[in-house]
Amino acid sequence: MSSIFTKIINGQIPSYKIFENELVFVFLDINPIRLGHTLIVPKVEIDYFVDVPENYYQAVFETAKTLAPAIQKSVECQRVGIMVLGIDVPHFHLHLVPIVDGKEFSGGQKIEKPSSEELQIILDKISGNLKTY
Amino acid sequence: MSSIFTKIINGQIPSYKIFENELVFVFLDINPIRLGHTLIVPKVEIDYFVDVPENYYQAVFETAKTLAPAIQKSVECQRVGIMVLGIDVPHFHLHLVPIVDGKEFSGGQKIEKPSSEELQIILDKISGNLKTY
Repeated sequence: MSSIFTKIINGQIPSYKIFENELVFVFLDINPIRLGHTLIVPKVEIDYFVDVPENYYQAVFETAKTLAPAIQKSVECQRVGIMVLGIDVPHFHLHLVPIVDGKEFSGGQKIEKPSSEELQIILDKISGNLKTY
Repeated sequence: MSSIFTKIINGQIPSYKIFENELVFVFLDINPIRLGHTLIVPKVEIDYFVDVPENYYQAVFETAKTLAPAIQKSVECQRVGIMVLGIDVPHFHLHLVPIVDGKEFSGGQKIEKPSSEELQIILDKISGNLKTY
């Protein structure tokens, strides 16, 4: 069975898509730690990052580098952090998370789940800032 | 003033070194979230990952891919996770953290600070497993 991320990539499940190319698909996390929390997923369904083919692996981290400034321009934060945990969905994904108080990866309270309107606004901001970067 | 990581790279501060090459320096975190918690630092003192030159940036993430299986062989864990936070030391560093209970990046209790003997044992294991990988 396809992972939820493969279904998102294939358009079977809708998403707040920021960007895609041949190798990666990028979209907003709908249960964000902080507003602007974004997922980068390779277009190959492999569970563990150590097993991901080189071109997809590099594309994920290059995309992180390109995207972080656009996220940072779009939300109030100190910078953007990276997290790869990988025990929820068996399809490698990188979390880009705006760092607001520094407790994002150490048990700080998540924000309340944003509305679809809030997600759309932040999506438009990030997409706009990505174009002008 | 040099960052604590530059001092470690230059040998002014001792460390539990696992590996180094021209681009990166790799050593054990002495205040680990889990035993085997490792830091990968580029040999260029730049604060934010988006500003790190391409060859150093790629080397950090390539090293993560190579090193994770050696860490996983050395400690009991489900897999190895990646974290880049960057608000403590102004010198880009990637955390490789053994994922034991999945709460490593969400406020789970850190282990007690290990002794130098415990760190040396885990260092020898990871170094050995890195050679045979």
